[in-house]
Amino acid sequence: MDGLKGQEQLVDLERNGLVLIQDRGRFCFGMDAVLLSGFAEIKRGETVLDLGTGTGILPLLLSAKTEASHLTGLEIQPESADMAARSVRLNGLSNRIDIIEGDIKNAVKLFGKASFDVVVSNPPYMTGGHGIVNPSDAKAIARHELLCNFSDVASAAAGVLKPGGRLFLVHRPFRLAEIISTLLSVGLEPKRLRLVYPYADREPDMVLLMCVKGGKPRLKVEKPLIIWQSKGIYTEEVANLYGL
Amino acid sequence: MDGLKGQEQLVDLERNGLVLIQDRGRFCFGMDAVLLSGFAEIKRGETVLDLGTGTGILPLLLSAKTEASHLTGLEIQPESADMAARSVRLNGLSNRIDIIEGDIKNAVKLFGKASFDVVVSNPPYMTGGHGIVNPSDAKAIARHELLCNFSDVASAAAGVLKPGGRLFLVHRPFRLAEIISTLLSVGLEPKRLRLVYPYADREPDMVLLMCVKGGKPRLKVEKPLIIWQSKGIYTEEVANLYGL
Repeated sequence: MDGLKGQEQLVDLERNGLVLIQDRGRFCFGMDAVLLSGFAEIKRGETVLDLGTGTGILPLLLSAKTEASHLTGLEIQPESADMAARSVRLNGLSNRIDIIEGDIKNAVKLFGKASFDVVVSNPPYMTGGHGIVNPSDAKAIARHELLCNFSDVASAAAGVLKPGGRLFLVHRPFRLAEIISTLLSVGLEPKRLRLVYPYADREPDMVLLMCVKGGKPRLKVEKPLIIWQSKGIYTEEVANLYGL
Repeated sequence: MDGLKGQEQLVDLERNGLVLIQDRGRFCFGMDAVLLSGFAEIKRGETVLDLGTGTGILPLLLSAKTEASHLTGLEIQPESADMAARSVRLNGLSNRIDIIEGDIKNAVKLFGKASFDVVVSNPPYMTGGHGIVNPSDAKAIARHELLCNFSDVASAAAGVLKPGGRLFLVHRPFRLAEIISTLLSVGLEPKRLRLVYPYADREPDMVLLMCVKGGKPRLKVEKPLIIWQSKGIYTEEVANLYGL
């Protein structure tokens, strides 16, 4: 029942002996989830919701990296939610992590207003569905805003966060203007921003952002996060995040 | 008449033999103006307005670095505007540069709607006037939002720019969220963003931003601009900007 199905494989997360059930034919977690798990500051005893958890990588990593009392992953795709739930059981974390199958747009209905200290999200990056052959494809749903858009994610986060609660998210820099203005429009004030550059002399391809619900305006833009020191060699910071 | 007054000095701009009249007791142009002059892309024959030109550093540098047909500097402080106008004459640039004494809030009234191809601005960075002893002090007015705030600058730029016209500005990263949302609210779409880091492993202390009036949403975040290669040694890019 909790074993592997079909083409699934077990991935070693290099952290507290954690493993994750993945299916390369569907969607594999990327570096974005790992970077977000390092960027998110979560205090002892806090409750955390992951909006669009996929196969549960963020709740699993955060269970190991933080002293959050409870983590909840919300996922709309039944197969991904099932894989996430089986990974949680396989790691013996059913007491700390819940996986809920459901729509981000119903988050407030599912969990109640002001019900979490922290929200994390690694949402779909791409607008629309240009050139998508099969819009029910798991990869397409994870990458493109087919079932939810950024405004849905921001509204859900603003709804379920307590006053002063924090949202941590990872996204693409090319959407930064829209992201910031959408977050402000729902009362989530950007407080920390970090750009992720593949190399020190390249354009950034990811942005990490922390917002505080009802926070005062003042954004701290942090030092660059550089991935590669040289070809194939992670910088020390990234190697540490991967537990290498 | 066009000579130096009181404590004024002539500064060599290291570019086309240009000089600038400055007074160290008032306000000296900083690296921000030099970086902005390198970030601004201005095509042959375009008209340019500098909102809050101070002693005219931006029109002077841009007259040397670009093929703009005409540059106008708007400055509210009479003494600064006078210094700027004398610098223009001293450099023999009266045919390409106009200095106008006036208020940014009246820019549309002064110049007309949709009257410029490009607007540049290095506005005051600090909100309010906390701890300011003399609010009529030239340095205080140049650094703090005493006579205009960012919303005034954005509205003026949106008003005087032609459709498709570009705004280039430099500001502080800590205000980035407010800046982006204010620009979007007046129809100026952020298209290029570059963070300026003193060293490769430090937080950025300036941000360069280009917006297009009525542009489509898609922001290009560029590679980091690093100032110092090591203590006292500019990176090659910055040395080039200074004409070194």
